[in-house]
Amino acid sequence: MSDYDLVIANGLAATATDTFRADIGIRDGRIVAIAEELEGGARTIDATAKLVLPGGIESHCHIAQESASGIMTSDDYYTGSVSAAFGGNTTFIPFAAQHRGQTIADVLKTYDDRAAPKSVIDYSYHLIVSDPTEAVLKEELPAAFERGITSFKVFLTYDLLKVEDEQMLDILTVAREHGALTMVHAENNALIKWMSARLMDKDYSAPKYHAVSHPRAAEVEAINRGIALAGFVDAPLLIVHVSTEGGARAIADARREGLKIYGETCPQYLFLTSEDMDRPGAEGAKFCCSPPLRDTETQDVLWRYLQTGGLQLYSSDHAPYRYDETGKLVHSKDPTFKQVANGLPGIEMRAPLLFSEGVRTGRISLNQFVSLTATNAAKMFGLHPQKGTIAVGADADLAIWDPDETRTVTAGGLHDNMDYTPFEGLEVTGWPVTMISRGRVIVEGGELLADAGQGTFLKRAPHEPA
Amino acid sequence: MSDYDLVIANGLAATATDTFRADIGIRDGRIVAIAEELEGGARTIDATAKLVLPGGIESHCHIAQESASGIMTSDDYYTGSVSAAFGGNTTFIPFAAQHRGQTIADVLKTYDDRAAPKSVIDYSYHLIVSDPTEAVLKEELPAAFERGITSFKVFLTYDLLKVEDEQMLDILTVAREHGALTMVHAENNALIKWMSARLMDKDYSAPKYHAVSHPRAAEVEAINRGIALAGFVDAPLLIVHVSTEGGARAIADARREGLKIYGETCPQYLFLTSEDMDRPGAEGAKFCCSPPLRDTETQDVLWRYLQTGGLQLYSSDHAPYRYDETGKLVHSKDPTFKQVANGLPGIEMRAPLLFSEGVRTGRISLNQFVSLTATNAAKMFGLHPQKGTIAVGADADLAIWDPDETRTVTAGGLHDNMDYTPFEGLEVTGWPVTMISRGRVIVEGGELLADAGQGTFLKRAPHEPA
Amino acid sequence: MSDYDLVIANGLAATATDTFRADIGIRDGRIVAIAEELEGGARTIDATAKLVLPGGIESHCHIAQESASGIMTSDDYYTGSVSAAFGGNTTFIPFAAQHRGQTIADVLKTYDDRAAPKSVIDYSYHLIVSDPTEAVLKEELPAAFERGITSFKVFLTYDLLKVEDEQMLDILTVAREHGALTMVHAENNALIKWMSARLMDKDYSAPKYHAVSHPRAAEVEAINRGIALAGFVDAPLLIVHVSTEGGARAIADARREGLKIYGETCPQYLFLTSEDMDRPGAEGAKFCCSPPLRDTETQDVLWRYLQTGGLQLYSSDHAPYRYDETGKLVHSKDPTFKQVANGLPGIEMRAPLLFSEGVRTGRISLNQFVSLTATNAAKMFGLHPQKGTIAVGADADLAIWDPDETRTVTAGGLHDNMDYTPFEGLEVTGWPVTMISRGRVIVEGGELLADAGQGTFLKRAPHEPA
Amino acid sequence: MSDYDLVIANGLAATATDTFRADIGIRDGRIVAIAEELEGGARTIDATAKLVLPGGIESHCHIAQESASGIMTSDDYYTGSVSAAFGGNTTFIPFAAQHRGQTIADVLKTYDDRAAPKSVIDYSYHLIVSDPTEAVLKEELPAAFERGITSFKVFLTYDLLKVEDEQMLDILTVAREHGALTMVHAENNALIKWMSARLMDKDYSAPKYHAVSHPRAAEVEAINRGIALAGFVDAPLLIVHVSTEGGARAIADARREGLKIYGETCPQYLFLTSEDMDRPGAEGAKFCCSPPLRDTETQDVLWRYLQTGGLQLYSSDHAPYRYDETGKLVHSKDPTFKQVANGLPGIEMRAPLLFSEGVRTGRISLNQFVSLTATNAAKMFGLHPQKGTIAVGADADLAIWDPDETRTVTAGGLHDNMDYTPFEGLEVTGWPVTMISRGRVIVEGGELLADAGQGTFLKRAPHEPA
Ligand SMILES: [Zn+2]
Ligand SMILES: [Zn+2]
Ligand SMILES: [Zn+2]
Ligand SMILES: [Zn+2]
Ligand SMILES: [Zn+2]
Ligand SMILES: [Zn+2]
Ligand SMILES: [Zn+2]
Ligand SMILES: [Zn+2]
Repeated sequence: MSDYDLVIANGLAATATDTFRADIGIRDGRIVAIAEELEGGARTIDATAKLVLPGGIESHCHIAQESASGIMTSDDYYTGSVSAAFGGNTTFIPFAAQHRGQTIADVLKTYDDRAAPKSVIDYSYHLIVSDPTEAVLKEELPAAFERGITSFKVFLTYDLLKVEDEQMLDILTVAREHGALTMVHAENNALIKWMSARLMDKDYSAPKYHAVSHPRAAEVEAINRGIALAGFVDAPLLIVHVSTEGGARAIADARREGLKIYGETCPQYLFLTSEDMDRPGAEGAKFCCSPPLRDTETQDVLWRYLQTGGLQLYSSDHAPYRYDETGKLVHSKDPTFKQVANGLPGIEMRAPLLFSEGVRTGRISLNQFVSLTATNAAKMFGLHPQKGTIAVGADADLAIWDPDETRTVTAGGLHDNMDYTPFEGLEVTGWPVTMISRGRVIVEGGELLADAGQGTFLKRAPHEPA
Repeated sequence: MSDYDLVIANGLAATATDTFRADIGIRDGRIVAIAEELEGGARTIDATAKLVLPGGIESHCHIAQESASGIMTSDDYYTGSVSAAFGGNTTFIPFAAQHRGQTIADVLKTYDDRAAPKSVIDYSYHLIVSDPTEAVLKEELPAAFERGITSFKVFLTYDLLKVEDEQMLDILTVAREHGALTMVHAENNALIKWMSARLMDKDYSAPKYHAVSHPRAAEVEAINRGIALAGFVDAPLLIVHVSTEGGARAIADARREGLKIYGETCPQYLFLTSEDMDRPGAEGAKFCCSPPLRDTETQDVLWRYLQTGGLQLYSSDHAPYRYDETGKLVHSKDPTFKQVANGLPGIEMRAPLLFSEGVRTGRISLNQFVSLTATNAAKMFGLHPQKGTIAVGADADLAIWDPDETRTVTAGGLHDNMDYTPFEGLEVTGWPVTMISRGRVIVEGGELLADAGQGTFLKRAPHEPA
Repeated sequence: MSDYDLVIANGLAATATDTFRADIGIRDGRIVAIAEELEGGARTIDATAKLVLPGGIESHCHIAQESASGIMTSDDYYTGSVSAAFGGNTTFIPFAAQHRGQTIADVLKTYDDRAAPKSVIDYSYHLIVSDPTEAVLKEELPAAFERGITSFKVFLTYDLLKVEDEQMLDILTVAREHGALTMVHAENNALIKWMSARLMDKDYSAPKYHAVSHPRAAEVEAINRGIALAGFVDAPLLIVHVSTEGGARAIADARREGLKIYGETCPQYLFLTSEDMDRPGAEGAKFCCSPPLRDTETQDVLWRYLQTGGLQLYSSDHAPYRYDETGKLVHSKDPTFKQVANGLPGIEMRAPLLFSEGVRTGRISLNQFVSLTATNAAKMFGLHPQKGTIAVGADADLAIWDPDETRTVTAGGLHDNMDYTPFEGLEVTGWPVTMISRGRVIVEGGELLADAGQGTFLKRAPHEPA
Repeated sequence: MSDYDLVIANGLAATATDTFRADIGIRDGRIVAIAEELEGGARTIDATAKLVLPGGIESHCHIAQESASGIMTSDDYYTGSVSAAFGGNTTFIPFAAQHRGQTIADVLKTYDDRAAPKSVIDYSYHLIVSDPTEAVLKEELPAAFERGITSFKVFLTYDLLKVEDEQMLDILTVAREHGALTMVHAENNALIKWMSARLMDKDYSAPKYHAVSHPRAAEVEAINRGIALAGFVDAPLLIVHVSTEGGARAIADARREGLKIYGETCPQYLFLTSEDMDRPGAEGAKFCCSPPLRDTETQDVLWRYLQTGGLQLYSSDHAPYRYDETGKLVHSKDPTFKQVANGLPGIEMRAPLLFSEGVRTGRISLNQFVSLTATNAAKMFGLHPQKGTIAVGADADLAIWDPDETRTVTAGGLHDNMDYTPFEGLEVTGWPVTMISRGRVIVEGGELLADAGQGTFLKRAPHEPA
């Protein structure tokens, strides 16, 4: 056998199903050999006592994206991808958001310009479709699918984004016909607006009332509706950021009936609660996201759905707005809950939190960790087998974890462009210490070794129902 | 890299999660390298256009076992293992059945004598415990676990086998303490006896009334009870041969609540129905098994539970009784349903049927096929990572499948010691054409190349809840 | 004891809970005595071998009402009330339908003019609210409630009628504050429009495609949404004309959780199926109603929910459109399913069908029959104890049934202004032979003895959650 | 109209469906007239500002009964019936308990001797069948049914009482054939014994561990099993004293599927919790009953099932054992939980507690109160229409309640033969102040006016599925 550009030696490797001690041989950016012992590496990294895992795939994050109300996220494709890489990821799929009136081609052009020169890891986009005109449905979306952008998100809430049920049926049908996957932010817009107005009327306006204004019923209703519509046209549908027991159960029930329904949850719903919003002054704003944080009982339930496959994805929903006048406080230093930009940062902490609280506590196996951080997303979004696993022929996207390293989370220790982290002060054990993207070491010894723009756009395959 | 004893070249390999084109290098009975290209094999098998899969693990079969009423199965460890091998399996786990009064040591001695000289593939046993005396619970079972026999089955039905609820609690507790897995044949004995007596009273005695005498309610009740007992002591429990929607749902519901409950179903419940028992004369006896065959609606439901993970195992429950005076007709040429030995043969057809009707129809993916035929059983029964996957360090137990070969099932074409197959006449596409056990080719070109007794007893690890 | 205007002697009387043999003494239009034997009646009707039941309350019917597209029902308050009376009813509550732009006062004025001079039985209205402006919500509806019109219906479907979710929340809240009951026609408008357009595109336009265009999913989705909204503001909600298992289950589940949700079904969903629409030419139009007819399996399910209290009301949804150019064929002699006015007549057959197929078959008790035809509606709609029962102090509204009289249903034998009945040819046993309204005999010997306009408007009490 | 022996004038009467102001005329022990105004009563009771309700039917109580271990209840048919009468009841149905080896005829003879000379109110028995021999099933039970004893209870727990599943099937079948109703104490015997032994082993023996030894799982399992067996033979089954959400849900689910399953709960599960057992020393013994007390969350759930008809009966399960050496302390002054006689007294407080906490709080209507205290039991147990309602022809069994009278519960204020009440100190509003049995005043002004033995044995009709 010929030589390798790089050999990862002596580590304990894991896929979504297997855990094995092996050397991994890399050539031309791909894994070409997995063996008991490999020699002939131009470089060899000794991974003794380390875990060698597929690089994480962060499939839900907001990067260099203006919100519907015009606020730009604090992270661009450079800081966002760097933070992702330090958090164990080698691929991410931010959103390319259509604002009403825009063509899809324009949207993609905009995001190509933002991503290509900057990203240090491979990337794709999910489109956000807010204006499903006939041109969009018949020509522009199919063209995007053709380009390998085979998933897109719609919203059932937010006045500037939401699609109506009939549009949703059209969208789902187009997606089904082209093998694309529809993702949905499922909250009932009316319930939220109605409740928000009531709260504001009574001067319950502090950030913490954000949680009250987005009741569980709003999520459960919209998830049920989304399932009904997708089930009717037999199209796959991914419910993102599930935060309620009722929502998770509806998804699992639909799956049991044979529908192609998927669900995602996020670290904030596993590790934070609405009590975190009960901070003095405006500080609750740091914890405002939609759907909002819930309670510890719900955390337990969501863990169970992750464990038993009722929910398939675990993503950060990284939506970075600084706690300053560019972000959370853009409208006021003392904002009402309606003025706070929704979203929490978390791209770098997603995998470490799951490792520490999931694998080390025995809640999930190491293989389930791989599934939840990499493989399931790769399969869901048409990246497998190129991404999301350790197999011959796959891209050499690897995360070498030290399972025993303990760190205390601080905003300063993270690499995003944020001034706070909602996970401040947590103690976490297990960290990705060396990151390899297409065979190239991009993080090592706490240093970034990658160049802006070295990440590659990924043309993704159609969604295959699993 | 050094040489290999055997290289499987150019095949499309699959694990429970990945599918990749690679060469597989084998040395000393184990997989030592997986690479784009491997040279230096003492022998190389060209698997172009073939699938290279983990050898199947048949985890529910009755071999060289006397029934409680004394009838010996037609297959011994030679014919049974040969048939298993021709059906794509490299490991099987028959039962070592305690009859009341026997010590566990005696039982194991008996089965060691039956298995060791004869099996052509690796094997272990599940114990059957019918007499859970204090000695059995406190000393004999723990000793068996220590020997690596870390699972055992109990019955909630059959007068000569059944354990009472209080015994069940003791058994489950002992199992939990030692990391062993309890399996249960869950049917309500009273319902069956009561109904059987009523049927016999009215001369509804033909074999086909077997189905009526084992109503769905009997299974559902016993599954619910088993779950209640196991849940109470927080012990893992595997419900074997689930044949009802109510049963499957109870299992999936329990899992959703976080209980360590598992479920298995079998080919007969996916591919046959109770109408198959409606044959003239005694021929219905060929289709008598417990629980009995149900209907096509239930088949669809069981498929869905397999697809979505509500059921985790797919086993043959091979229980071979010939259609002659040594088996089905032992008591009479015109037996009543109570005189018919219960059980169907199927060890050789299990995997091919699932491939043909599952993978080729798109009902399940190739990776799910690997999970259901090999990986899940390996994990459930403490054989992983030695068995059940293709990974560096694993035993070189491989099945090379021709995905396009079509055969018509006939009893004569199978290698068990049976005179009929319930699947006679089915057309099946996809067959395991070359079988490799610990790096040694045991089936090739339709010929057996293995020696009786070359299979090895497997010391299994404790059960780990998944 | 003093004399009576009328004594009903020797009958077997029944209420929602009791069945008893007694004489009933009536004075000044009310029941003043119930006793083993009463003398001194100015008139005595001998009810030997007859049942004496509370007069039925028909709480869902469309009388003298223009549809949103402008077609007037064939029945006015004279023919409608006469037909109701011959069908065993002494009270009905048609709809007073707001068209967008109308004030509620104008609506009520219109219907007062239509009803007061004509109705032969007592009546009230449910409003239909299609334009919930602030004036309507804050002033006009409360004024109507004050007048004793304490229930109203909204639609989640039909472009000219539907209310949006946020309006629905406002409406439910106003209703809750005033003790009014919201009723809802729950079908998802988008699903229906989307499917209808698809069907028309492909020229599946015959009347029978009406059933396909209103899928079960549309009803189940809207019922779930209605429950979510009502549950959120803790307001009572009555789902009318439930036609699906999924809908009935959602209602029963909500009730089990303590929500004030109620459900109604109708004779067409118990006695007809979508196969009745499969008639040649335009005849399927005679069976077009919304939601559409379903299947026999659903019939069984709906019976069970009526039996066990999961559904509480049984109404005709009498919506009479003749099979001619004034009704079903108004747009064309060969109409598409979109051109057919939706609705079936049934006000006269409602109770007899339930008696014949419910009481006589043993599916329900005579007391359940009374509940479903009279008492439950009286309680739900604020008419109890004045109406809906046989008790001292109640209005003397009575139906004397001959439980053994068998008739064959023909359009000609009914008293509405229709030219067909969907129940043509059914044989029915048990008929109301004498009808008494406020102590006055209005039907006897097959003759109408009432005067147009003798019916009285009923000021209803607020809804009390049951 | 002729005169009356007694007239109850000016009260507000209520049945299970109606509430009306009327005078009630009684002659020869029966209600013969209900009218706006009645004159000519030999005696007239003015019930102004009072409620006139059907006398309560206490259908689950243990009177003059030896437990399986031989302890006699403290109440005999005199004290028991007097206490029942003071608590608003005019009928009770204690148990006639078969001990193994006894014939049913002997059992009935024993209880006739105990009841006939003593009871001040009408009575029947439910048999307890602990020894279902063929003679019992084929001859003795049918003979008892013929005598009008059309219901009987079996136990799935207690070694000396329990029936096996196969016996249960025989029993249910016999009951179905004769129109009798089977009642079942549903707890899994094995779970209780197994857990009790574990607790005793570890010296967790104080009375409060009784609750731990009877886990919820034991009840839920046995209820599921009971439903499975009854559903299989399509026989009616009443689950007594339901104390768990899982049990109540299983019953309601079975009903929804059309099975003839009924459920009962008791005041102790609505008004007490297992924390009441946490008293110092032996005092926890006062609160030991089976199934044990649960928690406040379960109380809320059971209320909901009562409100929505998922549970149909509300009985005291009065099982009076004094807190002395004749009862709770018979085996020891410091008994273990296994030595404590199980059971709580409550026959006198059943109805007042439900009135105070149910009707006055608005949880249930007055009509539901009548259903739960009288009508439902009358219908379930073949006593309707003679008992359980206010209707012409019914027995004049009436309870006149003062809805505003407030009392504080004390053991001394009750009329049973107990030395404690578990409801000591509760403040309750609404009391039955005058009791009338077959037209005879038996309680008035706090005095008993009845003679021992004036109560009559009631021959009951077969059970009719409702
Ligand atoms: Zn979102
Ligand atoms: Zn997001
Ligand atoms: Zn079995
Ligand atoms: Zn078996
Ligand atoms: Zn409608
Ligand atoms: Zn209508
Ligand atoms: Zn009991
Ligand atoms: Zn009892």
